[in-house]
Amino acid sequence: MKIGILGAGQLARMLAISAHQLGIDTVCVDPNYECSARDVTKVHHADFFDLHEIEKCFSGVDCVTYETENLPIEAIHSVSKKFKLHPDIDILSIFQDRLSEKNFLNSLNIPTVDYLDVNSWHDIEYAINKFSFPFLIKTRRNGYDGKGQAMIHNTEEARAAWQQLSGKPLIIEKFVNFDFEISIISARNDKGETSFYPLVLNQHKNGILFLSQAPYFNEKLETLAKEYASVILRKLNYVGVMTIEFFCHHESLLANEIAPRVHNSGHWTIEGAETSQFENHLRAIIGWPLGSTKAKCLSAMFNLIGKKQIVSDLLNIPGAHYHWYNKKPLDGRKLGHLTLCTSNRNEMEMNIEKAIKLIRY
Amino acid sequence: MKIGILGAGQLARMLAISAHQLGIDTVCVDPNYECSARDVTKVHHADFFDLHEIEKCFSGVDCVTYETENLPIEAIHSVSKKFKLHPDIDILSIFQDRLSEKNFLNSLNIPTVDYLDVNSWHDIEYAINKFSFPFLIKTRRNGYDGKGQAMIHNTEEARAAWQQLSGKPLIIEKFVNFDFEISIISARNDKGETSFYPLVLNQHKNGILFLSQAPYFNEKLETLAKEYASVILRKLNYVGVMTIEFFCHHESLLANEIAPRVHNSGHWTIEGAETSQFENHLRAIIGWPLGSTKAKCLSAMFNLIGKKQIVSDLLNIPGAHYHWYNKKPLDGRKLGHLTLCTSNRNEMEMNIEKAIKLIRY
Repeated sequence: MKIGILGAGQLARMLAISAHQLGIDTVCVDPNYECSARDVTKVHHADFFDLHEIEKCFSGVDCVTYETENLPIEAIHSVSKKFKLHPDIDILSIFQDRLSEKNFLNSLNIPTVDYLDVNSWHDIEYAINKFSFPFLIKTRRNGYDGKGQAMIHNTEEARAAWQQLSGKPLIIEKFVNFDFEISIISARNDKGETSFYPLVLNQHKNGILFLSQAPYFNEKLETLAKEYASVILRKLNYVGVMTIEFFCHHESLLANEIAPRVHNSGHWTIEGAETSQFENHLRAIIGWPLGSTKAKCLSAMFNLIGKKQIVSDLLNIPGAHYHWYNKKPLDGRKLGHLTLCTSNRNEMEMNIEKAIKLIRY
Repeated sequence: MKIGILGAGQLARMLAISAHQLGIDTVCVDPNYECSARDVTKVHHADFFDLHEIEKCFSGVDCVTYETENLPIEAIHSVSKKFKLHPDIDILSIFQDRLSEKNFLNSLNIPTVDYLDVNSWHDIEYAINKFSFPFLIKTRRNGYDGKGQAMIHNTEEARAAWQQLSGKPLIIEKFVNFDFEISIISARNDKGETSFYPLVLNQHKNGILFLSQAPYFNEKLETLAKEYASVILRKLNYVGVMTIEFFCHHESLLANEIAPRVHNSGHWTIEGAETSQFENHLRAIIGWPLGSTKAKCLSAMFNLIGKKQIVSDLLNIPGAHYHWYNKKPLDGRKLGHLTLCTSNRNEMEMNIEKAIKLIRY
């Protein structure tokens, strides 16, 4: 069994590690030379448009998946004609574009923030009249970790953002002062078997995920999140792991982003769930039965961002599991993560405090 | 951080996978060309006596460990002069030889079966008089999975075994019709921090481990096993994971074999314990704090021997985790393992029955 992965960052790395356990061979294609996955599996450096090279790299694979939705869709269209792609090309196409994503969600009656397609300065003026300040201008594609977006508090800022971002397809989103953010990770295989991990509570710092805690217990929100996820999975005949990030606002959920892939807010599943999101993504795209998505304990996952860590200090925290991606330290770059596991709520709070003191940012 | 591993079989493979999670680089040396670890880490093909080549392969490693005690001790002596070896050369030397192992255990008042050093036919005649039939003749070194040993029921069989095995250093062990076999896996780092996994109940078929179940609950035996393990670890200033196999006979323990390494009866710890034996071995030899060795649930680990499996059938068993080592199928060869996890005793019994029906031997 052999799987091709488009992209070779840390998500590909963790997919490959999980694949090794299952005896599944993996091969990644990435245009970048320094890739986190390079020391755990084969990584070929090729442009995503170089179909000839990609065909060579992926020779003999049973199917192809991706670790990022930020892929050139025309190129991947060609790949999907040669290889079985999971999740499929239409799914990738919808979720790599904030506008088509939101249009899709609204067509399914899944609430989102109000938004506007932006093609001209006129559209921004319209937004200024329609939405009160502040609102957000975002690039429709290739945004991640808070990149490619600006919060707009007045007309001057709107003008500056327009100068900086115009030329790229843009979207304006109404700002919602939400109470907190959660995500739900689900898996579905080609037999329609579907599983949901428990809700995850996510906290960000400077636009980057900082802390994910699971399970986040809220029956009402969990039921709602599963309902929305189910509708999407069925509608798209989805195969693989899918993540939805929600804003929680006045006890209701607004779908913010959908990732057609394994997700940072699911790294806790490696130790904290009966089957990790990585293994379940592989099982799903191969057509194997899914593993249980139940939590084994309480988990808290910290991203390790920008700096090297003093590992022995971190591992002194009870129930700590350290993951390092072998990337060059750089401000704002996700270099690894730390997962804390325990079944005791008080112990978890104490351990989170310890971790916050010890993690170097 | 970089670690050299002597040997590149499935134990090295699982060490390397665990190392990948921790961002630790690994490199293996093995004289064999077909190695299970080859598709998860760098494997250099070199003779263990080729110190020059080994030095090149292990260039830049922080320390060296091994996945088997069946190593040429003179060669490894040279390696240990160039690199920090964990567990150290004296430990390897004791435990790779059934006679020195048993002498060592007896010097610490840890019970074993009665045994005799065999250097001549005369020694065998002495054993025939001293021990009643049956007894076992074993090679002192390089035995595994029931290889290099014979059960002797009469003088004729003794003569045949002598003809076949003489020339190699031998040991005779009194046959004990033990009630069952258990093992204890422990970890110790260079700060003397020591941890024990719960007891494991082991069942063999044709001399090969077939099923390991953990935790095996027996307070008296657990206390005794930990006591024996502690004495050994302290005496040897042991660094790494160590496994002791015990025969249980009339509520007492006879130490059978000691493995100075991660062990087949500890594979369940990947999903079933808070930290796997592989991660704890790495943490120990690096000098990091050990992770918790507590069981998260009930586990049953089946070796997958000789034949390819129908994976989707196996993964239909609730709580099943499949591991495949990418080795060529061959009669009696360990090709992978299946771990079943659940917290419910009845469910475990049912799932074990399912697995026994589905696993192809």
